[in-house]
Amino acid sequence: MGIRGRTRPSGGVTMEPASDERPKVVIVGAGFGGLWAARTLARRDVDVTLIDRNNFHTFFPLLYQVAAAELVPTDIAHPVRSIFRKSPSVDFHMLEVTGVDLEGRRVQAGDVSFAYDSLILAPGSVPHYFGVAGAQEHSFPLRWMADAVPLRHHVLTRFEAATHEPDPAVRRRMLTFTVVGGGPTGVEYAGALAELIEGPLLRDYARVRRSEVRVLVMEANDRVLGGMPASLGKYAAERLARQGVTVRLGVRVERVTADSVELAGGEVVPSETVVWTAGIQGDPIVASWGFPVGPGGRVPVTRELHLEDHPEVYVVGDLCGVVDEDGDPFPQVAQAAIQQGRRAALNILARAEGKSGDPFRFRDPGMLAVIGRNAAVAHVFGRAFRGFVAWVLWLVIHLAWLVGFRNRTLVLVNWGLNYLFFDRAVRLILDAAGEPDSRRVASGIDRVKD
Amino acid sequence: MGIRGRTRPSGGVTMEPASDERPKVVIVGAGFGGLWAARTLARRDVDVTLIDRNNFHTFFPLLYQVAAAELVPTDIAHPVRSIFRKSPSVDFHMLEVTGVDLEGRRVQAGDVSFAYDSLILAPGSVPHYFGVAGAQEHSFPLRWMADAVPLRHHVLTRFEAATHEPDPAVRRRMLTFTVVGGGPTGVEYAGALAELIEGPLLRDYARVRRSEVRVLVMEANDRVLGGMPASLGKYAAERLARQGVTVRLGVRVERVTADSVELAGGEVVPSETVVWTAGIQGDPIVASWGFPVGPGGRVPVTRELHLEDHPEVYVVGDLCGVVDEDGDPFPQVAQAAIQQGRRAALNILARAEGKSGDPFRFRDPGMLAVIGRNAAVAHVFGRAFRGFVAWVLWLVIHLAWLVGFRNRTLVLVNWGLNYLFFDRAVRLILDAAGEPDSRRVASGIDRVKD
Repeated sequence: MGIRGRTRPSGGVTMEPASDERPKVVIVGAGFGGLWAARTLARRDVDVTLIDRNNFHTFFPLLYQVAAAELVPTDIAHPVRSIFRKSPSVDFHMLEVTGVDLEGRRVQAGDVSFAYDSLILAPGSVPHYFGVAGAQEHSFPLRWMADAVPLRHHVLTRFEAATHEPDPAVRRRMLTFTVVGGGPTGVEYAGALAELIEGPLLRDYARVRRSEVRVLVMEANDRVLGGMPASLGKYAAERLARQGVTVRLGVRVERVTADSVELAGGEVVPSETVVWTAGIQGDPIVASWGFPVGPGGRVPVTRELHLEDHPEVYVVGDLCGVVDEDGDPFPQVAQAAIQQGRRAALNILARAEGKSGDPFRFRDPGMLAVIGRNAAVAHVFGRAFRGFVAWVLWLVIHLAWLVGFRNRTLVLVNWGLNYLFFDRAVRLILDAAGEPDSRRVASGIDRVKD
Repeated sequence: MGIRGRTRPSGGVTMEPASDERPKVVIVGAGFGGLWAARTLARRDVDVTLIDRNNFHTFFPLLYQVAAAELVPTDIAHPVRSIFRKSPSVDFHMLEVTGVDLEGRRVQAGDVSFAYDSLILAPGSVPHYFGVAGAQEHSFPLRWMADAVPLRHHVLTRFEAATHEPDPAVRRRMLTFTVVGGGPTGVEYAGALAELIEGPLLRDYARVRRSEVRVLVMEANDRVLGGMPASLGKYAAERLARQGVTVRLGVRVERVTADSVELAGGEVVPSETVVWTAGIQGDPIVASWGFPVGPGGRVPVTRELHLEDHPEVYVVGDLCGVVDEDGDPFPQVAQAAIQQGRRAALNILARAEGKSGDPFRFRDPGMLAVIGRNAAVAHVFGRAFRGFVAWVLWLVIHLAWLVGFRNRTLVLVNWGLNYLFFDRAVRLILDAAGEPDSRRVASGIDRVKD
């Protein structure tokens, strides 16, 4: 493939695929939905253009481990170009999509423009703050790779700062870590954070006493892990408590400031670190591109996953507003995105052959969450597992879904070392150190759209 | 050890060591010199305070591999606190030193102040630009950890940008990578960059042709690797040429701009990436602390490594201006820093016992540089090695000096995977992507002093 970019009179560049005869499929987003759609189309008789603002695919289920200093970003990310190295019909572009012309069938990314016959839209989701004042400004999301490292730095610099802080009240505030949301991400991060503190941090910071450090989980419902059987939520809460995490149920966060969380009822919890895992919503940018937006920021589509008015435009992943026979939505999880990506790709191929597409059916493989060493919960194969068995299941399933032999090897070596030495090596503070405000700068880089 | 910080009337904090009776040694800098001084003092009858602006020790000899997407920062860095976890007499502080009061025997780090009986100064070196116009503004140094990742991002984004660039002249400029300096760092980085391009990048960027990409080494002398025997320099230059690197000898860089290098004689080489490895000098900040500064920015000291006027103040590492019997300086390399750190520590212990210190003697273990796969040069044990034997020597020696079992394991696994798959996995672009100016912002974070 040579250089096929063509300068247009306007100064923009139009990218044309290698062949003008084969159907052109543009995929926006290389997360689970977009990546699996591209994989499904890679060796078929279509030209695929895959666009993502990052040059890598992120394995989100392990993102919290990057934020907890267990893994480095490279371990859970894979360069998209490498994935499609042997698929010349897949053309990757690292660009930020700025618009979609539904009538003209073009995707715009700044100056660069892509024509399509079929479009698969999979830009994913953003944190949902439910209108809580200050949450967006003062809490750390755990949604993108660019969120994880600033959070890790922030946690570590709280311990560094406490080393030089004589005032007990200020120390307490510095050393209180609040996780808002008791879903899988909140539970997993709280557990990993407790292990990070109990293992290496308390051993390394002689000037910090265990009694000064608190990890809190704030959950609005009366249980954690609401999507799993009640027995597993109970086990997870007990296990977190055993690891020193304070789980508070039925509390509603009303306001987040730079150094506190305010609860309904007036209670103020001093805390310089607030991690927001309470919810996600479809990326709102698609509304400005002319897409209809329904509940949860999701785009309503037919059961074949395309827009009602534009059967050539498919929406998959967290943004996909497909509902089942009963009108219920599907969960916003990796497996749903993967299966939707595949379904959209297969429906495009079917329509290219003059056949009709099939409706989306979700094969739910279950849910897992790890709480700590040898401790996890799993609701798979229609059964509930907990403890060591669930932990092994969790390890095997996550390794299996990681993209790439190298990532699997490195994650396995890292986990092995962490497990054997009760340690976390990824404790470098590499950005502007110690300045509380730097966290907004650093974590804002990749979140222009929020 | 409890909290011993004490708020002073001025609002500052004075850190006192655990015991007031034992001699207090403050060490500024946790590079090779400072770290080995602290290790030497760790189990002796002194209280050690170690201060560094980073919370980790960097293994600089492998920094270029981070910039060439072979390793991640964590692989070559080790948290300082973990190194001294079992040494309660070593107290680490992640702080930026702002001044030294030689008369009052205090080190100041912002609001925090440390009293000392003996001081070991080891802040290291900064790039030396020899007054070349634009070099500091427009070239990438390879001196600190914070330099390596922005350089990696910049190289990768040049390839991404070329994907959308139709103008052949602009593409050529984007895809020309210039390394200024043919010393070990320049040679190693040029070799690693050529392998990164030849291996994964040309395979992944179908829109970039091999003939469009150039890696240049600009060396002012008539040979590369000036510190090694001429035969090894010749081998290295030939080997680089075989890897597609253009080595230009006897050329003097007169100016660097955002998109070019100008040579003496008027030749202009269009290049958006200039890596500066031409020289280093002692960190000039010590002049503002009242230290005398001699040639190369180094602080003149006695042969026992202390200031003439202040026998309690030692200077080690790249900043140390000690000379041998003939008045010649020692090389600014890791081994010299390590041996000076040890010597300063031992001299402090000797003086504490009323004995006199010993003069510094350098046991030169030799020099090594790797050029590529199975190809290195080594001048060790008084002999010259090249090719595969030198490459194995290089691997073994570097692994041996890496701090920490985990780092050794991960580096070995990474090297093994790179070697087997001719690949580089660390190809994530994680900062503000594609904007040429973002590189200054990103790489400036840790280089406030430059």
